[in-house]
Amino acid sequence: MTRPLSVALAGLGTVGGGVLDMLQKNADIVAARAGRPIAITAVSARDRNRDRGLSLDGLRWFDDPVALAHDPAIDVIVEVIGGSDGPARRLVEAALAAGKPVVTANKALLAVHGAELAALSEKHNVTLAFEAAVAGGIPVIKALREGLAGNRISRVAGILNGTCNYILTVMRERGREFADVLADAQKLGYAEADPAFDIDGIDAAHKLAILAALAFGRPVAFDAVHVEGIRHISAVDIAFATELGYRIKLLGIARQTEAGIAARVHPCMVPQASPIARVDGVFNAVVAEGDFVGRVMLEGRGAGAGPTASAVVADLIDIARGRATPVWGAGSGALSSVPSVGMEAHLGAYYLRLMVVDRPGVIADVTAALRDEGVSMGSMLQRGRSPGEAVPVVIVTHETRESAMRRAIARITELETVLETPAMIRIEAA
Amino acid sequence: MTRPLSVALAGLGTVGGGVLDMLQKNADIVAARAGRPIAITAVSARDRNRDRGLSLDGLRWFDDPVALAHDPAIDVIVEVIGGSDGPARRLVEAALAAGKPVVTANKALLAVHGAELAALSEKHNVTLAFEAAVAGGIPVIKALREGLAGNRISRVAGILNGTCNYILTVMRERGREFADVLADAQKLGYAEADPAFDIDGIDAAHKLAILAALAFGRPVAFDAVHVEGIRHISAVDIAFATELGYRIKLLGIARQTEAGIAARVHPCMVPQASPIARVDGVFNAVVAEGDFVGRVMLEGRGAGAGPTASAVVADLIDIARGRATPVWGAGSGALSSVPSVGMEAHLGAYYLRLMVVDRPGVIADVTAALRDEGVSMGSMLQRGRSPGEAVPVVIVTHETRESAMRRAIARITELETVLETPAMIRIEAA
Repeated sequence: MTRPLSVALAGLGTVGGGVLDMLQKNADIVAARAGRPIAITAVSARDRNRDRGLSLDGLRWFDDPVALAHDPAIDVIVEVIGGSDGPARRLVEAALAAGKPVVTANKALLAVHGAELAALSEKHNVTLAFEAAVAGGIPVIKALREGLAGNRISRVAGILNGTCNYILTVMRERGREFADVLADAQKLGYAEADPAFDIDGIDAAHKLAILAALAFGRPVAFDAVHVEGIRHISAVDIAFATELGYRIKLLGIARQTEAGIAARVHPCMVPQASPIARVDGVFNAVVAEGDFVGRVMLEGRGAGAGPTASAVVADLIDIARGRATPVWGAGSGALSSVPSVGMEAHLGAYYLRLMVVDRPGVIADVTAALRDEGVSMGSMLQRGRSPGEAVPVVIVTHETRESAMRRAIARITELETVLETPAMIRIEAA
Repeated sequence: MTRPLSVALAGLGTVGGGVLDMLQKNADIVAARAGRPIAITAVSARDRNRDRGLSLDGLRWFDDPVALAHDPAIDVIVEVIGGSDGPARRLVEAALAAGKPVVTANKALLAVHGAELAALSEKHNVTLAFEAAVAGGIPVIKALREGLAGNRISRVAGILNGTCNYILTVMRERGREFADVLADAQKLGYAEADPAFDIDGIDAAHKLAILAALAFGRPVAFDAVHVEGIRHISAVDIAFATELGYRIKLLGIARQTEAGIAARVHPCMVPQASPIARVDGVFNAVVAEGDFVGRVMLEGRGAGAGPTASAVVADLIDIARGRATPVWGAGSGALSSVPSVGMEAHLGAYYLRLMVVDRPGVIADVTAALRDEGVSMGSMLQRGRSPGEAVPVVIVTHETRESAMRRAIARITELETVLETPAMIRIEAA
């Protein structure tokens, strides 16, 4: 065997610890698969003296992660600092410019600065690998970029945020409200102290932007992703979803339409019988639809030390073996320039729940607003009668243009007998 | 762009036609992903004059596929002839010896002669790729060999034969018997005129042998796979399975045990709630369990022109990009020599259905036989009473050693009041 691949690890949080652990525990397997041993030889983190429960014996310490990029004894950089800017970005840029391959788990960095990083990677002919950035240990980057590479992909969709999926699963199983379940998830470590990034859909949108770029062979376009989170999902809507034969999931969906690529992250009602509806708890899943392969689904743990380390180590093995792929699947000159299309052009069915005063004429006003905006109703559900009091009314539309739906909702919201902002959830065939 | 990768296609059946079609229809995508165009330039098949509905204009015709291996204008060979011996084997051996990369969809060839072929591939430092050999378009070879490569895999299991899964699905949905559904499947083209290879589990065993070699990093060992098919599954057992909360699936399962690798293909009862239980019809699925990644499941179409072509073309793109992996994931010197263990050592729960004469004392005789062989009963089901006539009795055991179970079944079969060979189906946690 040749000499070990010498790896520098920048970031010693959960993921960094997992990578150290895996390379030690599975050193035999890794060396067999990589054709040579892979060893962490240098580390960098913010605080040298913090007790992380990790042995750093024999590893060189760097206070400045960017200095790793210039150390001649280091072959590859693993960046697990996180964040779209700051030291993570500086390190990755410096490493690529210095001709050192980089493995990163940083979805924000890839989603926001992926175009420039791909250019750097191409210019210096050096690998930038990021399997760990999307869906943890599920090899979905490899599947899209290599395994399904010959297909014209029409749609890629997934449950991309385990925190949201966990919260929605517990809300449904226990009939509890969002805020309660979030608080519990924070105590259990399934949600961050500042959960906005997860529950507002930003994290899922970063991952979707990456998947869409790979699926459609075009530069990453995070700003074009429509993003909504799960804060406004209430127990009553989850109960209605069950009654109607649906599950509510936060999905990221990118689709090739006639006008261009539509990419969106928002809560969806998906049929209970669809495979993705059954992916519960902290699990992630990605579905890709190709013209030759048909529908392929990959499912597994989307986060945590072990699954993320699994993806980072797979990337290191690829680098050790000399297996390389352009960042977005094709060289810059061969990427597609298909445009993005906005959410107002979305066409689909909608679930609408209103809280209305239970009195004659209310439904007539609501249905008139829908009719005036050209929204065709599929069905209506009304539960319980309490004359003069607030009752929920659920409407499911036929296929409708988003722009028409928004106008209709604005009109309905103005009705005096409609007591809250209507709850709107898009229905997805999944 | 560099000059096209010149590919010879040996075999013009369903899969060969699919490969031709995909490389033509998606030439733009393939060239972008591969970094250069990929073009079929030569073909070989048994009968030049047969109308296949394919245009072979501009392609060089070879009557002898082995001659493709020696043609200097050919860069890569795609072997989709099939069969573990004969022209397929001769072509692949000749191509590797001549230093030409080979892409094959031939699971029988890999399962039976994979060790010698890997040695040839290693000796001549040339790629032998076979993503299409297992689970069609699902990139499961790539996932196991690259995407999860750093994991110690404890178990790999899958629905590996679409014909069997289709037959079992229709039997359950319609309550029909095996022979009827098989006859219909043959009319619909879901089963071959000679279906033995599929329904007796051989095809699934070929695929499992390949998956086990990759999962456990050891040479392929087809002869060590225990194989049973689905001929003996009857509608009554499927109905009992449903009643007990199970689905019957033909699974291929390879597991690391203390004594070695246990690999087996047989019908299993799996809990209805397990993800693999819901994979119906012609779909395939593979579950891998790794020490860091946890459980990953991949699902999709396991056969047919499109999915198989998708896998072949992905392999061609890897070759065009120079991405190479040793046949069994590691070089011959780094493969594990862990032994295989036989089926008699299997430990699990069992479903047993007897047809017995409904008269006093029968159950006492049966349970005595189980007790004498150390088989512990979990539950017993008896439906209907018809004194003096045949009635089914179902027994579910606690965890039992296969050898004990076989002795108990032999004793039970000898009882005068037991009218048919008992139906035995292993229960798998899935």
